[in-house]
Amino acid sequence: MAAWARAVRGLLLDVSGVLYDSGGDGGGVPIAGSVEAVRRIKASGLKLRFCTNETQATREKFVNKLQGMGFDISVAEVTAPAPAACRILKERSLRPHLLVHDDLVSEFAEIDKANPNCVVIGDAAENFTYANLNEAFRVLIGMEKPVLISLGRGRYYKETDGLKLDVGAYMKALEYACDVQAEVVGKPAKMFFESALAEMGVPPQQAIMIGDDIENDVGGAQRCGMRALQVRTGKYRPCDENHPHVKPDAYVNNLAEAVDVILQQL
Amino acid sequence: MAAWARAVRGLLLDVSGVLYDSGGDGGGVPIAGSVEAVRRIKASGLKLRFCTNETQATREKFVNKLQGMGFDISVAEVTAPAPAACRILKERSLRPHLLVHDDLVSEFAEIDKANPNCVVIGDAAENFTYANLNEAFRVLIGMEKPVLISLGRGRYYKETDGLKLDVGAYMKALEYACDVQAEVVGKPAKMFFESALAEMGVPPQQAIMIGDDIENDVGGAQRCGMRALQVRTGKYRPCDENHPHVKPDAYVNNLAEAVDVILQQL
Repeated sequence: MAAWARAVRGLLLDVSGVLYDSGGDGGGVPIAGSVEAVRRIKASGLKLRFCTNETQATREKFVNKLQGMGFDISVAEVTAPAPAACRILKERSLRPHLLVHDDLVSEFAEIDKANPNCVVIGDAAENFTYANLNEAFRVLIGMEKPVLISLGRGRYYKETDGLKLDVGAYMKALEYACDVQAEVVGKPAKMFFESALAEMGVPPQQAIMIGDDIENDVGGAQRCGMRALQVRTGKYRPCDENHPHVKPDAYVNNLAEAVDVILQQL
Repeated sequence: MAAWARAVRGLLLDVSGVLYDSGGDGGGVPIAGSVEAVRRIKASGLKLRFCTNETQATREKFVNKLQGMGFDISVAEVTAPAPAACRILKERSLRPHLLVHDDLVSEFAEIDKANPNCVVIGDAAENFTYANLNEAFRVLIGMEKPVLISLGRGRYYKETDGLKLDVGAYMKALEYACDVQAEVVGKPAKMFFESALAEMGVPPQQAIMIGDDIENDVGGAQRCGMRALQVRTGKYRPCDENHPHVKPDAYVNNLAEAVDVILQQL
Protein backbone atom coordinates (compact mmCIF):
# COMPACT_ATOMS: atom_id res chain seq x y z
CA MET A 1 0.00 0.00 0.00
CA ALA A 2 1.28 3.44 -0.93
CA ALA A 3 0.99 5.77 2.05
CA TRP A 4 1.43 8.82 -0.16
CA ALA A 5 -1.80 8.03 -2.05
CA ARG A 6 -4.19 8.02 0.91
CA ALA A 7 -7.00 10.49 1.67
CA VAL A 8 -6.83 12.29 -1.66
CA ARG A 9 -9.69 14.45 -2.90
CA GLY A 10 -8.06 16.37 -5.72
CA LEU A 11 -5.24 16.18 -8.27
CA LEU A 12 -3.26 18.97 -9.87
CA LEU A 13 -1.67 17.88 -13.14
CA ASP A 14 1.20 19.56 -14.91
CA VAL A 15 0.57 19.31 -18.64
CA SER A 16 3.72 19.42 -20.79
CA GLY A 17 5.84 16.36 -20.00
CA VAL A 18 3.00 14.69 -18.08
CA LEU A 19 0.11 14.57 -20.56
CA TYR A 20 2.16 15.06 -23.73
CA ASP A 21 5.58 15.85 -25.16
CA SER A 22 5.47 19.13 -27.00
CA GLY A 23 6.92 19.46 -30.50
CA GLY A 24 9.00 22.26 -31.97
CA ASP A 25 6.24 23.03 -34.46
CA GLY A 26 3.75 23.78 -31.69
CA GLY A 27 2.29 20.29 -31.87
CA GLY A 28 3.32 17.28 -29.86
CA VAL A 29 2.39 13.72 -29.00
CA PRO A 30 0.45 12.28 -26.03
CA ILE A 31 2.47 10.29 -23.51
CA ALA A 32 1.35 6.65 -23.55
CA GLY A 33 -1.63 6.02 -21.23
CA SER A 34 -2.20 9.67 -20.30
CA VAL A 35 -5.41 10.25 -22.32
CA GLU A 36 -7.00 7.27 -20.62
CA ALA A 37 -5.56 8.34 -17.22
CA VAL A 38 -7.32 11.74 -17.40
CA ARG A 39 -10.56 9.98 -18.30
CA ARG A 40 -10.22 7.65 -15.31
CA ILE A 41 -9.56 10.53 -12.90
CA LYS A 42 -12.73 12.27 -14.07
CA ALA A 43 -14.78 9.07 -13.80
CA SER A 44 -13.49 8.50 -10.25
CA GLY A 45 -15.09 11.63 -8.83
CA LEU A 46 -11.73 13.14 -7.80
CA LYS A 47 -11.42 16.88 -8.32
CA LEU A 48 -9.01 17.72 -11.12
CA ARG A 49 -7.20 20.86 -12.23
CA PHE A 50 -4.53 21.35 -14.89
CA CYS A 51 -1.78 23.58 -13.53
CA THR A 52 0.61 24.70 -16.27
CA ASN A 53 3.32 27.29 -16.84
CA GLU A 54 2.55 27.14 -20.57
CA THR A 55 2.85 30.59 -22.09
CA GLN A 56 3.36 29.80 -25.76
CA ALA A 57 -0.35 30.03 -26.52
CA THR A 58 -3.62 31.33 -25.14
CA ARG A 59 -5.47 28.85 -22.96
CA GLU A 60 -8.00 28.42 -25.79
CA LYS A 61 -5.37 27.35 -28.33
CA PHE A 62 -3.58 25.21 -25.78
CA VAL A 63 -6.77 23.39 -24.82
CA ASN A 64 -7.76 22.94 -28.48
CA LYS A 65 -4.42 21.27 -29.13
CA LEU A 66 -4.89 18.89 -26.19
CA GLN A 67 -8.47 18.09 -27.20
CA GLY A 68 -7.13 17.27 -30.66
CA MET A 69 -4.86 14.68 -29.02
CA GLY A 70 -7.90 13.12 -27.34
CA PHE A 71 -7.71 14.70 -23.88
CA ASP A 72 -10.91 15.48 -21.96
CA ILE A 73 -10.01 19.04 -20.93
CA SER A 74 -11.68 22.48 -21.04
CA VAL A 75 -10.39 26.06 -20.65
CA ALA A 76 -12.20 26.43 -17.32
CA GLU A 77 -10.11 23.60 -15.85
CA VAL A 78 -6.74 25.23 -16.61
CA THR A 79 -4.70 27.44 -14.25
CA ALA A 80 -2.07 29.34 -16.30
CA PRO A 81 0.26 32.31 -15.70
CA ALA A 82 -1.07 34.84 -18.23
CA PRO A 83 -4.54 35.35 -16.70
CA ALA A 84 -2.92 35.52 -13.25
CA ALA A 85 -0.50 38.17 -14.53
CA CYS A 86 -3.36 40.20 -16.00
CA ARG A 87 -5.03 40.34 -12.59
CA ILE A 88 -1.80 41.66 -11.05
CA LEU A 89 -1.26 44.23 -13.84
CA LYS A 90 -4.77 45.60 -13.33
CA GLU A 91 -4.54 45.68 -9.54
CA ARG A 92 -1.26 47.62 -9.64
CA SER A 93 -1.97 49.83 -12.69
CA LEU A 94 1.02 48.35 -14.50
CA ARG A 95 1.36 48.83 -18.25
CA PRO A 96 3.52 46.03 -19.65
CA HIS A 97 6.08 45.85 -22.39
CA LEU A 98 5.53 42.26 -23.52
CA LEU A 99 8.34 39.85 -24.34
CA VAL A 100 6.14 36.83 -25.00
CA HIS A 101 5.16 34.38 -27.72
CA ASP A 102 3.04 35.89 -30.53
CA ASP A 103 0.25 33.47 -29.68
CA LEU A 104 0.05 34.72 -26.09
CA VAL A 105 -0.40 38.43 -26.90
CA SER A 106 -4.19 38.24 -27.12
CA GLU A 107 -4.38 37.19 -23.43
CA PHE A 108 -3.30 40.78 -22.71
CA ALA A 109 -5.82 42.37 -25.10
CA GLU A 110 -7.61 44.30 -22.37
CA ILE A 111 -4.45 45.60 -20.72
CA ASP A 112 -3.18 49.13 -21.41
CA LYS A 113 0.29 48.79 -22.90
CA ALA A 114 1.01 52.45 -23.77
CA ASN A 115 4.08 54.04 -22.16
CA PRO A 116 5.13 50.86 -20.33
CA ASN A 117 6.10 50.86 -16.67
CA CYS A 118 7.01 47.17 -16.39
CA VAL A 119 8.22 44.26 -18.51
CA VAL A 120 6.36 40.93 -18.69
CA ILE A 121 8.44 38.01 -19.94
CA GLY A 122 7.05 34.61 -20.94
CA ASP A 123 8.39 31.69 -22.92
CA ALA A 124 8.79 33.77 -26.07
CA ALA A 125 10.63 30.95 -27.94
CA GLU A 126 11.55 32.27 -31.42
CA ASN A 127 10.77 35.78 -30.16
CA PHE A 128 13.83 35.54 -27.87
CA THR A 129 15.91 37.37 -30.46
CA TYR A 130 18.93 39.54 -29.74
CA ALA A 131 16.93 42.62 -30.81
CA ASN A 132 13.90 41.79 -28.64
CA LEU A 133 16.03 41.08 -25.58
CA ASN A 134 17.88 44.37 -26.01
CA GLU A 135 14.56 46.18 -26.35
CA ALA A 136 13.10 44.68 -23.17
CA PHE A 137 16.37 45.45 -21.40
CA ARG A 138 16.26 49.12 -22.47
CA VAL A 139 12.69 49.50 -21.24
CA LEU A 140 13.69 48.06 -17.86
CA ILE A 141 16.95 49.94 -17.40
CA GLY A 142 15.16 53.18 -18.28
CA MET A 143 12.84 52.85 -15.27
CA GLU A 144 13.67 54.46 -11.97
CA LYS A 145 12.64 51.25 -10.23
CA PRO A 146 12.51 48.40 -12.78
CA VAL A 147 9.56 45.98 -12.49
CA LEU A 148 10.04 42.60 -14.17
CA ILE A 149 7.23 40.04 -14.10
CA SER A 150 8.13 36.55 -15.25
CA LEU A 151 5.53 33.97 -16.31
CA GLY A 152 7.20 31.02 -14.62
CA ARG A 153 10.89 30.49 -13.95
CA GLY A 154 11.55 27.15 -15.62
CA ARG A 155 15.13 26.36 -16.60
CA TYR A 156 14.37 24.30 -19.69
CA TYR A 157 11.86 21.92 -21.18
CA LYS A 158 11.87 19.09 -23.65
CA GLU A 159 10.38 19.24 -27.11
CA THR A 160 10.35 16.39 -29.59
CA ASP A 161 13.49 17.85 -31.20
CA GLY A 162 15.42 18.33 -27.96
CA LEU A 163 15.80 20.42 -24.81
CA LYS A 164 15.07 24.17 -25.03
CA LEU A 165 15.89 27.03 -22.69
CA ASP A 166 12.78 28.15 -20.81
CA VAL A 167 11.72 31.62 -19.66
CA GLY A 168 13.71 31.38 -16.41
CA ALA A 169 17.03 31.56 -18.26
CA TYR A 170 16.05 34.79 -20.02
CA MET A 171 14.55 36.13 -16.78
CA LYS A 172 17.96 35.64 -15.16
CA ALA A 173 19.67 37.49 -18.02
CA LEU A 174 17.44 40.55 -17.50
CA GLU A 175 17.65 40.31 -13.71
CA TYR A 176 21.44 40.42 -13.90
CA ALA A 177 21.65 43.18 -16.51
CA CYS A 178 19.28 45.45 -14.56
CA ASP A 179 20.18 44.35 -11.03
CA VAL A 180 16.53 43.59 -10.30
CA GLN A 181 14.62 40.60 -8.94
CA ALA A 182 11.75 39.34 -11.08
CA GLU A 183 8.32 38.67 -9.60
CA VAL A 184 7.35 35.17 -10.70
CA VAL A 185 3.74 34.45 -11.68
CA GLY A 186 3.16 30.72 -12.20
CA LYS A 187 4.75 27.67 -10.63
CA PRO A 188 6.59 27.52 -8.21
CA ALA A 189 4.96 30.66 -6.73
CA LYS A 190 2.88 29.74 -3.69
CA MET A 191 0.05 32.08 -4.67
CA PHE A 192 -0.29 30.29 -8.01
CA PHE A 193 -0.74 26.84 -6.43
CA GLU A 194 -3.10 28.31 -3.86
CA SER A 195 -5.36 29.77 -6.54
CA ALA A 196 -5.42 26.40 -8.34
CA LEU A 197 -6.40 24.70 -5.07
CA ALA A 198 -9.07 27.33 -4.40
CA GLU A 199 -10.51 26.84 -7.89
CA MET A 200 -10.70 23.12 -7.16
CA GLY A 201 -12.08 23.63 -3.64
CA VAL A 202 -9.62 21.22 -2.01
CA PRO A 203 -7.20 21.97 0.87
CA PRO A 204 -3.51 21.27 0.21
CA GLN A 205 -3.44 18.30 2.61
CA GLN A 206 -5.94 16.49 0.40
CA ALA A 207 -4.31 17.26 -2.94
CA ILE A 208 -1.50 15.72 -4.96
CA MET A 209 0.53 17.56 -7.61
CA ILE A 210 1.90 15.41 -10.44
CA GLY A 211 4.67 16.91 -12.55
CA ASP A 212 7.94 16.32 -14.39
CA ASP A 213 9.78 19.36 -12.96
CA ILE A 214 11.53 18.61 -9.68
CA GLU A 215 11.71 22.25 -8.60
CA ASN A 216 8.73 24.03 -10.10
CA ASP A 217 6.18 21.24 -9.76
CA VAL A 218 7.39 19.09 -6.89
CA GLY A 219 9.23 21.65 -4.75
CA GLY A 220 6.63 24.36 -5.27
CA ALA A 221 3.66 22.12 -4.41
CA GLN A 222 5.34 20.67 -1.33
CA ARG A 223 6.02 24.18 0.00
CA CYS A 224 2.23 24.70 -0.14
CA GLY A 225 1.62 21.63 2.00
CA MET A 226 0.64 19.32 -0.86
CA ARG A 227 2.04 15.93 -1.69
CA ALA A 228 3.88 15.82 -5.00
CA LEU A 229 4.93 13.07 -7.40
CA GLN A 230 7.57 13.26 -10.09
CA VAL A 231 6.86 11.33 -13.28
CA ARG A 232 9.75 9.80 -15.20
CA THR A 233 8.54 11.39 -18.45
CA GLY A 234 9.03 14.80 -20.07
CA LYS A 235 12.09 16.65 -18.85
CA TYR A 236 12.75 14.16 -16.01
CA ARG A 237 16.41 13.19 -15.79
CA PRO A 238 17.85 10.44 -13.54
CA CYS A 239 20.03 13.00 -11.73
CA ASP A 240 16.80 14.69 -10.50
CA GLU A 241 16.63 11.81 -8.00
CA ASN A 242 19.75 13.22 -6.31
CA HIS A 243 18.38 16.75 -6.07
CA PRO A 244 20.02 18.44 -3.05
CA HIS A 245 16.84 20.07 -1.70
CA VAL A 246 13.70 18.49 -3.15
CA LYS A 247 12.45 14.93 -2.67
CA PRO A 248 9.10 13.92 -4.17
CA ASP A 249 6.63 11.92 -2.04
CA ALA A 250 7.04 9.26 -4.73
CA TYR A 251 8.37 8.63 -8.21
CA VAL A 252 6.11 7.09 -10.83
CA ASN A 253 7.05 6.00 -14.32
CA ASN A 254 4.23 8.01 -15.85
CA LEU A 255 0.81 9.51 -15.16
CA ALA A 256 -1.02 6.24 -15.85
CA GLU A 257 0.95 4.47 -13.13
CA ALA A 258 0.24 7.28 -10.63
CA VAL A 259 -3.49 7.10 -11.38
CA ASP A 260 -3.48 3.31 -10.96
CA VAL A 261 -2.11 3.62 -7.44
CA ILE A 262 -4.29 6.56 -6.41
CA LEU A 263 -7.53 4.98 -7.63
CA GLN A 264 -6.74 1.71 -5.84
CA GLN A 265 -6.73 3.61 -2.54
CA LEU A 266 -10.12 5.31 -2.98
CA MET B 1 46.48 68.60 -5.59
CA ALA B 2 44.89 65.22 -6.30
CA ALA B 3 46.22 62.63 -3.86
CA TRP B 4 44.97 59.78 -6.03
CA ALA B 5 47.31 60.80 -8.87
CA ARG B 6 50.63 60.61 -6.97
CA ALA B 7 53.44 58.13 -7.52
CA VAL B 8 52.07 56.63 -10.73
CA ARG B 9 54.23 54.66 -13.11
CA GLY B 10 51.69 52.97 -15.31
CA LEU B 11 48.15 53.31 -16.62
CA LEU B 12 45.68 50.64 -17.65
CA LEU B 13 43.02 51.98 -19.98
CA ASP B 14 39.70 50.41 -20.75
CA VAL B 15 38.92 51.01 -24.42
CA SER B 16 35.21 51.03 -25.30
CA GLY B 17 33.55 53.96 -23.51
CA VAL B 18 36.92 55.50 -22.60
CA LEU B 19 38.71 55.90 -25.93
CA TYR B 20 35.65 55.66 -28.18
CA ASP B 21 31.93 54.94 -28.33
CA SER B 22 31.32 51.84 -30.38
CA GLY B 23 28.70 51.79 -33.12
CA GLY B 24 26.20 49.09 -33.98
CA ASP B 25 27.87 48.58 -37.38
CA GLY B 26 31.18 47.66 -35.77
CA GLY B 27 32.53 51.18 -36.16
CA GLY B 28 32.33 53.98 -33.66
CA VAL B 29 33.56 57.47 -32.86
CA PRO B 30 36.45 58.66 -30.67
CA ILE B 31 35.51 60.39 -27.42
CA ALA B 32 36.58 64.03 -27.54
CA GLY B 33 40.20 64.51 -26.42
CA SER B 34 41.02 60.82 -26.08
CA VAL B 35 43.26 60.49 -29.17
CA GLU B 36 45.40 63.34 -27.89
CA ALA B 37 45.29 61.94 -24.34
CA VAL B 38 46.82 58.61 -25.44
CA ARG B 39 49.54 60.51 -27.29
CA ARG B 40 50.32 62.55 -24.19
CA ILE B 41 50.54 59.45 -21.97
CA LYS B 42 53.06 57.89 -24.36
CA ALA B 43 55.10 61.11 -24.57
CA SER B 44 55.19 61.33 -20.75
CA GLY B 45 57.16 58.11 -20.29
CA LEU B 46 54.39 56.46 -18.26
CA LYS B 47 53.87 52.77 -18.97
CA LEU B 48 50.61 52.12 -20.77
CA ARG B 49 48.47 49.05 -21.42
CA PHE B 50 45.02 48.73 -22.98
CA CYS B 51 42.90 46.33 -20.93
CA THR B 52 39.68 45.42 -22.70
CA ASN B 53 36.92 42.84 -22.47
CA GLU B 54 36.28 43.36 -26.19
CA THR B 55 35.38 40.04 -27.81
CA GLN B 56 33.59 41.13 -30.97
CA ALA B 57 36.77 41.06 -33.03
CA THR B 58 40.30 39.70 -33.07
CA ARG B 59 42.85 42.00 -31.49
CA GLU B 60 44.18 42.73 -34.99
CA LYS B 61 40.83 43.99 -36.28
CA PHE B 62 40.13 45.85 -33.08
CA VAL B 63 43.48 47.64 -33.18
CA ASN B 64 43.07 48.44 -36.89
CA LYS B 65 39.75 50.11 -36.14
CA LEU B 66 41.28 52.20 -33.36
CA GLN B 67 44.27 53.17 -35.51
CA GLY B 68 41.77 54.26 -38.16
CA MET B 69 40.28 56.65 -35.59
CA GLY B 70 43.74 58.12 -35.00
CA PHE B 71 44.80 56.23 -31.85
CA ASP B 72 48.47 55.35 -31.31
CA ILE B 73 47.96 51.69 -30.37
CA SER B 74 49.41 48.31 -31.37
CA VAL B 75 48.32 44.69 -30.88
CA ALA B 76 51.20 44.07 -28.47
CA GLU B 77 49.81 46.71 -26.09
CA VAL B 78 46.38 45.07 -25.74
CA THR B 79 45.31 42.62 -23.02
CA ALA B 80 42.09 40.86 -24.12
CA PRO B 81 40.11 37.80 -22.99
CA ALA B 82 40.37 35.53 -26.05
CA PRO B 83 44.14 34.95 -25.93
CA ALA B 84 43.89 34.43 -22.17
CA ALA B 85 41.13 31.88 -22.70
CA CYS B 86 43.23 30.04 -25.30
CA ARG B 87 46.01 29.62 -22.75
CA ILE B 88 43.54 28.09 -20.27
CA LEU B 89 41.99 25.78 -22.89
CA LYS B 90 45.42 24.44 -23.82
CA GLU B 91 46.56 24.01 -20.21
CA ARG B 92 43.46 22.03 -19.29
CA SER B 93 42.98 20.13 -22.58
CA LEU B 94 39.56 21.70 -23.04
CA ARG B 95 37.87 21.55 -26.44
CA PRO B 96 35.39 24.43 -26.69
CA HIS B 97 32.02 24.79 -28.28
CA LEU B 98 32.18 28.50 -29.21
CA LEU B 99 29.29 30.92 -28.73
CA VAL B 100 31.15 34.03 -29.87
CA HIS B 101 31.12 36.73 -32.52
CA ASP B 102 32.03 35.52 -36.03
CA ASP B 103 34.99 37.90 -36.04
CA LEU B 104 36.47 36.32 -32.90
CA VAL B 105 36.53 32.73 -34.15
CA SER B 106 39.98 33.00 -35.73
CA GLU B 107 41.51 33.72 -32.28
CA PHE B 108 40.71 30.06 -31.53
CA ALA B 109 42.16 28.74 -34.82
CA GLU B 110 44.79 26.59 -33.10
CA ILE B 111 42.43 25.09 -30.55
CA ASP B 112 40.94 21.63 -31.06
CA LYS B 113 37.16 22.04 -31.13
CA ALA B 114 36.11 18.46 -32.01
CA ASN B 115 33.82 16.67 -29.56
CA PRO B 116 33.56 19.66 -27.18
CA ASN B 117 33.99 19.29 -23.42
CA CYS B 118 33.31 22.94 -22.51
CA VAL B 119 31.46 26.02 -23.76
CA VAL B 120 33.18 29.37 -24.31
CA ILE B 121 30.83 32.35 -24.44
CA GLY B 122 31.83 35.86 -25.56
CA ASP B 123 29.91 38.93 -26.65
CA ALA B 124 28.36 37.13 -29.62
CA ALA B 125 26.01 40.06 -30.44
CA GLU B 126 23.85 39.05 -33.43
CA ASN B 127 24.99 35.46 -32.87
CA PHE B 128 22.97 35.43 -29.61
CA THR B 129 20.07 33.81 -31.41
CA TYR B 130 17.47 31.53 -29.83
CA ALA B 131 18.89 28.60 -31.83
CA ASN B 132 22.52 29.27 -30.86
CA LEU B 133 21.66 29.68 -27.17
CA ASN B 134 19.72 26.40 -27.21
CA GLU B 135 22.65 24.69 -28.90
CA ALA B 136 25.20 25.93 -26.34
CA PHE B 137 22.80 24.93 -23.57
CA ARG B 138 22.43 21.38 -24.94
CA VAL B 139 26.20 20.95 -25.14
CA LEU B 140 26.53 22.06 -21.50
CA ILE B 141 23.63 20.09 -20.05
CA GLY B 142 24.91 16.99 -21.81
CA MET B 143 28.20 17.07 -19.85
CA GLU B 144 28.60 15.16 -16.63
CA LYS B 145 30.24 18.23 -15.10
CA PRO B 146 29.48 21.28 -17.26
CA VAL B 147 32.37 23.72 -17.84
CA LEU B 148 31.36 27.23 -18.94
CA ILE B 149 34.06 29.82 -19.66
CA SER B 150 32.86 33.40 -20.08
CA LEU B 151 34.93 36.11 -21.78
CA GLY B 152 34.05 38.86 -19.34
CA ARG B 153 30.87 39.24 -17.33
CA GLY B 154 29.69 42.72 -18.31
CA ARG B 155 26.01 43.52 -17.84
CA TYR B 156 25.63 45.87 -20.81
CA TYR B 157 27.47 48.44 -22.90
CA LYS B 158 26.59 51.46 -24.93
CA GLU B 159 26.73 51.66 -28.69
CA THR B 160 25.88 54.71 -30.75
CA ASP B 161 22.34 53.35 -31.23
CA GLY B 162 21.74 52.56 -27.56
CA LEU B 163 22.50 50.17 -24.69
CA LYS B 164 23.04 46.49 -25.49
CA LEU B 165 23.08 43.40 -23.29
CA ASP B 166 26.64 42.18 -22.79
CA VAL B 167 27.99 38.65 -22.42
CA GLY B 168 27.32 38.55 -18.66
CA ALA B 169 23.56 38.48 -19.18
CA TYR B 170 23.78 35.43 -21.46
CA MET B 171 26.33 33.83 -19.13
CA LYS B 172 23.75 34.11 -16.32
CA ALA B 173 21.09 32.49 -18.52
CA LEU B 174 23.29 29.45 -19.14
CA GLU B 175 24.48 29.34 -15.51
CA TYR B 176 20.88 29.19 -14.32
CA ALA B 177 19.70 26.67 -16.91
CA CYS B 178 22.59 24.27 -16.18
CA ASP B 179 23.04 25.02 -12.47
CA VAL B 180 26.72 25.79 -13.06
CA GLN B 181 29.04 28.67 -12.22
CA ALA B 182 30.96 30.17 -15.14
CA GLU B 183 34.71 30.77 -14.96
CA VAL B 184 35.27 34.37 -16.02
CA VAL B 185 38.29 35.23 -18.18
CA GLY B 186 38.69 39.01 -18.52
CA LYS B 187 37.84 41.88 -16.23
CA PRO B 188 37.01 41.77 -13.30
CA ALA B 189 39.01 38.54 -12.79
CA LYS B 190 42.07 39.22 -10.65
CA MET B 191 44.31 37.04 -12.81
CA PHE B 192 43.44 39.12 -15.86
CA PHE B 193 44.47 42.43 -14.26
CA GLU B 194 47.59 40.78 -12.86
CA SER B 195 48.69 39.64 -16.30
CA ALA B 196 48.15 43.15 -17.69
CA LEU B 197 50.27 44.57 -14.85
CA ALA B 198 52.98 41.96 -15.43
CA GLU B 199 53.05 42.76 -19.15
CA MET B 200 53.52 46.43 -18.20
CA GLY B 201 56.08 45.63 -15.49
CA VAL B 202 54.45 47.85 -12.87
CA PRO B 203 53.21 46.79 -9.40
CA PRO B 204 49.54 47.46 -8.59
CA GLN B 205 50.38 50.20 -6.08
CA GLN B 206 51.92 52.27 -8.87
CA ALA B 207 49.19 51.74 -11.44
CA ILE B 208 45.86 53.39 -12.15
CA MET B 209 42.98 51.77 -14.03
CA ILE B 210 40.70 54.13 -15.97
CA GLY B 211 37.35 52.75 -17.07
CA ASP B 212 33.63 53.44 -17.53
CA ASP B 213 32.40 50.26 -15.80
CA ILE B 214 31.99 50.67 -12.06
CA GLU B 215 32.15 46.95 -11.33
CA ASN B 216 34.36 45.36 -13.95
CA ASP B 217 36.90 48.17 -14.33
CA VAL B 218 36.85 50.02 -11.02
CA GLY B 219 35.87 47.25 -8.60
CA GLY B 220 38.07 44.66 -10.27
CA ALA B 221 41.18 46.87 -10.36
CA GLN B 222 40.76 48.00 -6.76
CA ARG B 223 40.56 44.38 -5.60
CA CYS B 224 44.02 43.95 -7.16
CA GLY B 225 45.41 46.83 -5.12
CA MET B 226 45.33 49.40 -7.91
CA ARG B 227 43.76 52.84 -7.85
CA ALA B 228 40.84 53.20 -10.25
CA LEU B 229 39.01 56.12 -11.84
CA GLN B 230 35.58 56.11 -13.38
CA VAL B 231 35.12 58.33 -16.44
CA ARG B 232 31.74 59.97 -17.02
CA THR B 233 31.68 58.71 -20.62
CA GLY B 234 30.58 55.45 -22.26
CA LYS B 235 28.15 53.45 -20.19
CA TYR B 236 28.61 55.65 -17.10
CA ARG B 237 25.28 56.51 -15.48
CA PRO B 238 24.81 59.02 -12.60
CA CYS B 239 23.39 56.25 -10.38
CA ASP B 240 26.82 54.53 -10.54
CA GLU B 241 27.93 57.16 -8.03
CA ASN B 242 25.62 55.55 -5.46
CA HIS B 243 26.94 52.03 -6.04
CA PRO B 244 26.47 50.03 -2.82
CA HIS B 245 29.92 48.40 -2.85
CA VAL B 246 32.34 50.16 -5.19
CA LYS B 247 33.70 53.67 -4.88
CA PRO B 248 36.31 54.90 -7.41
CA ASP B 249 39.39 56.74 -6.15
CA ALA B 250 38.08 59.63 -8.25
CA TYR B 251 35.57 60.54 -10.93
CA VAL B 252 36.75 62.37 -14.03
CA ASN B 253 34.62 63.72 -16.85
CA ASN B 254 36.69 61.92 -19.47
CA LEU B 255 40.09 60.45 -20.21
CA ALA B 256 41.59 63.81 -21.23
CA GLU B 257 40.76 65.27 -17.81
CA ALA B 258 42.30 62.28 -16.02
CA VAL B 259 45.49 62.60 -18.04
CA ASP B 260 45.69 66.35 -17.31
CA VAL B 261 45.68 65.69 -13.57
CA ILE B 262 48.05 62.72 -13.69
CA LEU B 263 50.63 64.46 -15.85
CA GLN B 264 50.62 67.54 -13.60
CA GLN B 265 51.77 65.35 -10.71
CA LEU B 266 54.72 63.78 -12.51
